Amino acid sequence: MRQSKMFIPTLRDVPADAEIKSHQLLLRAGYIRQVASGVYTYLPLARNVLHKIETIIREEMEAIGSMELLMPALQPAELWQESGRWYSYGPELMRLKDRHERDFALGPTHEEVITSLIRGEIKSYKRLPLSLYQIQTKFRDEKRPRFGLLRGREFVMKDAYSFHADQESLDETYNDMYRAYSNIFSRCKLDFRAVLADSGAIGGKDTQEFMVLSEIGEDTIAYSDASDYAANIEMAEVKTVYTKPDKPEKPLEKIPTPGQKTIAQIVDFLKADPVQCLKTLVLKADDEYVIVLVRGDHEVNEIKVKNLLGAETIEMADPEIIKTLMGADIGSLGPVGAPENIRILADNAVQYVVNGICGANENDYHYINANPGRDYRVDLYGDLRNIQEGDPSPDGKGTIRFARGIEVGHIFKLGTKYSEAMHAAFLDENGREQVILMGCYGIGVSRTLMAVCEQHNDDKGLVWPVNLAPFEVHLVPVNMKDEKQAGLTEKLYTELQKQFTVLMDDRNERPGVKFADSDLIGLPTRVTVGKKASEGIVEIKVRKTGEVLEVKQEDLSGTIANILAKLA
Amino acid sequence: MRQSKMFIPTLRDVPADAEIKSHQLLLRAGYIRQVASGVYTYLPLARNVLHKIETIIREEMEAIGSMELLMPALQPAELWQESGRWYSYGPELMRLKDRHERDFALGPTHEEVITSLIRGEIKSYKRLPLSLYQIQTKFRDEKRPRFGLLRGREFVMKDAYSFHADQESLDETYNDMYRAYSNIFSRCKLDFRAVLADSGAIGGKDTQEFMVLSEIGEDTIAYSDASDYAANIEMAEVKTVYTKPDKPEKPLEKIPTPGQKTIAQIVDFLKADPVQCLKTLVLKADDEYVIVLVRGDHEVNEIKVKNLLGAETIEMADPEIIKTLMGADIGSLGPVGAPENIRILADNAVQYVVNGICGANENDYHYINANPGRDYRVDLYGDLRNIQEGDPSPDGKGTIRFARGIEVGHIFKLGTKYSEAMHAAFLDENGREQVILMGCYGIGVSRTLMAVCEQHNDDKGLVWPVNLAPFEVHLVPVNMKDEKQAGLTEKLYTELQKQFTVLMDDRNERPGVKFADSDLIGLPTRVTVGKKASEGIVEIKVRKTGEVLEVKQEDLSGTIANILAKLA
Repeated sequence: MRQSKMFIPTLRDVPADAEIKSHQLLLRAGYIRQVASGVYTYLPLARNVLHKIETIIREEMEAIGSMELLMPALQPAELWQESGRWYSYGPELMRLKDRHERDFALGPTHEEVITSLIRGEIKSYKRLPLSLYQIQTKFRDEKRPRFGLLRGREFVMKDAYSFHADQESLDETYNDMYRAYSNIFSRCKLDFRAVLADSGAIGGKDTQEFMVLSEIGEDTIAYSDASDYAANIEMAEVKTVYTKPDKPEKPLEKIPTPGQKTIAQIVDFLKADPVQCLKTLVLKADDEYVIVLVRGDHEVNEIKVKNLLGAETIEMADPEIIKTLMGADIGSLGPVGAPENIRILADNAVQYVVNGICGANENDYHYINANPGRDYRVDLYGDLRNIQEGDPSPDGKGTIRFARGIEVGHIFKLGTKYSEAMHAAFLDENGREQVILMGCYGIGVSRTLMAVCEQHNDDKGLVWPVNLAPFEVHLVPVNMKDEKQAGLTEKLYTELQKQFTVLMDDRNERPGVKFADSDLIGLPTRVTVGKKASEGIVEIKVRKTGEVLEVKQEDLSGTIANILAKLA
Repeated sequence: MRQSKMFIPTLRDVPADAEIKSHQLLLRAGYIRQVASGVYTYLPLARNVLHKIETIIREEMEAIGSMELLMPALQPAELWQESGRWYSYGPELMRLKDRHERDFALGPTHEEVITSLIRGEIKSYKRLPLSLYQIQTKFRDEKRPRFGLLRGREFVMKDAYSFHADQESLDETYNDMYRAYSNIFSRCKLDFRAVLADSGAIGGKDTQEFMVLSEIGEDTIAYSDASDYAANIEMAEVKTVYTKPDKPEKPLEKIPTPGQKTIAQIVDFLKADPVQCLKTLVLKADDEYVIVLVRGDHEVNEIKVKNLLGAETIEMADPEIIKTLMGADIGSLGPVGAPENIRILADNAVQYVVNGICGANENDYHYINANPGRDYRVDLYGDLRNIQEGDPSPDGKGTIRFARGIEVGHIFKLGTKYSEAMHAAFLDENGREQVILMGCYGIGVSRTLMAVCEQHNDDKGLVWPVNLAPFEVHLVPVNMKDEKQAGLTEKLYTELQKQFTVLMDDRNERPGVKFADSDLIGLPTRVTVGKKASEGIVEIKVRKTGEVLEVKQEDLSGTIANILAKLA
């Protein structure tokens, strides 16, 4: 492709509103432009890369027998009312009325549409399992769109849905998807982890997120330094085995602690160790208020509390209500003498705290030397805290470290959530009606593009992996007005195109501008045609390593092929 | 692909709400399903065909140097307000508000978005010309969606936009697009005509529609039976050379015609010939009322009147106002004695009407023997009528015939319509600011799919052209429970896939069901594995011709290759 015919509007300056590297570079290198907050145009170079990512996805989806279809963005409100999400989704669901005042949603996802399709067509176990996917534009009205394509309001997604007669079949497809996703992100040359995203009922294997490791990630991942274990910190199981300190229990004592409310203040005031302290929270799980205890150096994990109780919802109790229930304000709460009608839950670590410090349920007073069983009741122990760096990995291998990640994929066993609400059933081999089991599987396609940029760049610009680069070779004559250079360039352009995808910079720009643009755009190899054109010698620069080679024109194709193969 | 894994929900009955053949067949053969009025899901077979059409389009666009990009569906209202279309587009423009109450349109087309992109980036003649296209989902809130994908509310389009420094460059790209479009629709095996769609200022070559000939088409095309001339009937120039009948002018006479208002009534009442009558209309062109005369057997063409006057708008005058202006009601109007302050326009044919019949501007009275010049004034003659079957073709070759057509493509020289309204300008070689010239070029991708179905089917189902068929071969074992048949089928499935795309019907269905489904789905060749499997003999059926051949398994691939080559 001749660069003069392409539309690659590069920018010299870093755009003011772009906070992260990949966003800055995609703007500067002429890949994307913003149309509205969180809404972008993909210019030709980015459209090209999107195609390549889409092709990888299609190949891997086909390999596991998933069929491509295309569902609409316009979704009738009735379907969303059936599933209940019309009411629960909130302002992120973009809604509109048609000319007849009928309500529609702009699909952020397609569970309702596909469930309604399937329930109309699949009536027998003979037609199951079934796996369908699409690559399609999605809409989500983010409160604060940011980071370019990472958190946009209109974006390209691959979403897949599978339908099953039994759990075994769902598990199988889920595992196929896991492998396909691993292949896809590996082929996109991403450094990623598959992360456990739920510690729910069926063994914590019901949903996994594929996270690209990156400082700018919005999620924190706990991962093992010695295995492939990884989980959202909120989801990671704590398997620490605590030991009881070998020291005598002292008598419980109530002491004045004027104005001391936080663990940090108490530690300072009493010259104590945080591990000696008890954090006391009051939570509301569905309609029940419960007291939750964790050690002073730990953070309570509300999702674990919710799961332990089998509750649907969990939230912090209102401070006014806490005062009424406990007789003291937050900061002076504790389990000793807590009201008998409120259950006390404690993290496993609490059982091993000897002579603990806790609020006295009286403002400005604390107890010291509080011991479970002797001084206070615990109704239920469990794993109720967030994992921490340094904890042993739950899989028994290595130690937990933290990293930040960008979610690029998500696989999820939906079970009967939608099929039950929307009455998608089949007749089994015995003619009995059963609800279809479902799985759903998403990949942020435009987000993946951005994640690749975030992991593949340097201070001069983008550095594309060979298989995703919009072109493999950037052919750059130093001076198109020099007849020898122009002649050789045209010849090489014809020649190279037989074997490679080539972008030829035929613009009348200064060499400095061309080289800077070339580095920004980030194609794997640059062939510079300069003064030695008359001798038939050109220069190859490897974008990733900066390595520069002089080669004779007859060796050019072979050398480039070798370089690309090595880079791949 | 194994059919048991595919999702092809065929229907035995013709769906009640599908009026046309292609719509019925796409539903029955399991290609599409409706989600809401005018909103469809493309099931795997249709998605496959869409990909093939899209690939053809991409190849032809690339061949003429148009670059692919991807613009968003969500378009800020501000851009549409700048162009003015926010106010003029009407209820077909789907509109919504985001969570911050900002107005957005769901793009039915992208002139505004791309003009706003280009004006920000293209400042110099050096960067022109430029041609960009996308394949993207569009939205238009049709008042009455119908005919399946033909008139939907969400549909796939290819839209291209070009930008130029001068008219010559625009003309060149327009001609390139014309060729590319011709190639695309030829490669889609469509019987189509490129139709003149405007008789506007610059020679009637500013816009052409690509119409697929079909009885169900919503537009009427006038075409020559002896050349490639074709135009929308409203746009076709009338080049008829009239001759004046050789008969003496008789004296003007006013006669009572009680209750006779239409041409048909007058013809009957006076035993006259329609060619003897004058139709008199009062139109409002911008703010001016004009009288327009055409011959009794002709239809007035308002667009031609508008163009002759250089008016922006044209409409029928209000009956009340006509009564006030002319002194009589519609049905009794005529040019004789018409008010002097109203201009009289007449179609060229009127000049040759000797002893004409017209209303007397007095209810229930007509004049006979009215002659132009002598009895009434004509201020302006011109081509003001619709062309008719039997008229000579305007290009001088052959005679005009009418046909109905489905518009699948449209190429248009926009000129400065958007670039002027939105201030998209460049500096020319002399450093002078000039407005960019634009062209726009659309193809209805999903509509093209439907048009192909409309032209390629028979009473048993669809009959795909080889290059668009979702698979080339339908491999159908009569009985999968027969070991010999199943064994040979699996072997052939592996074998054939090396050379062809194959759909294998591995379902446990009765042969009748399989064959009926196979005909419905419409793949070019069917290979039936039946009783002679044990002898290594199978049957090939050519879907299009119905031809049936028995072949030995070793000759199968070669025979299919020959058949496909012949069909292509």
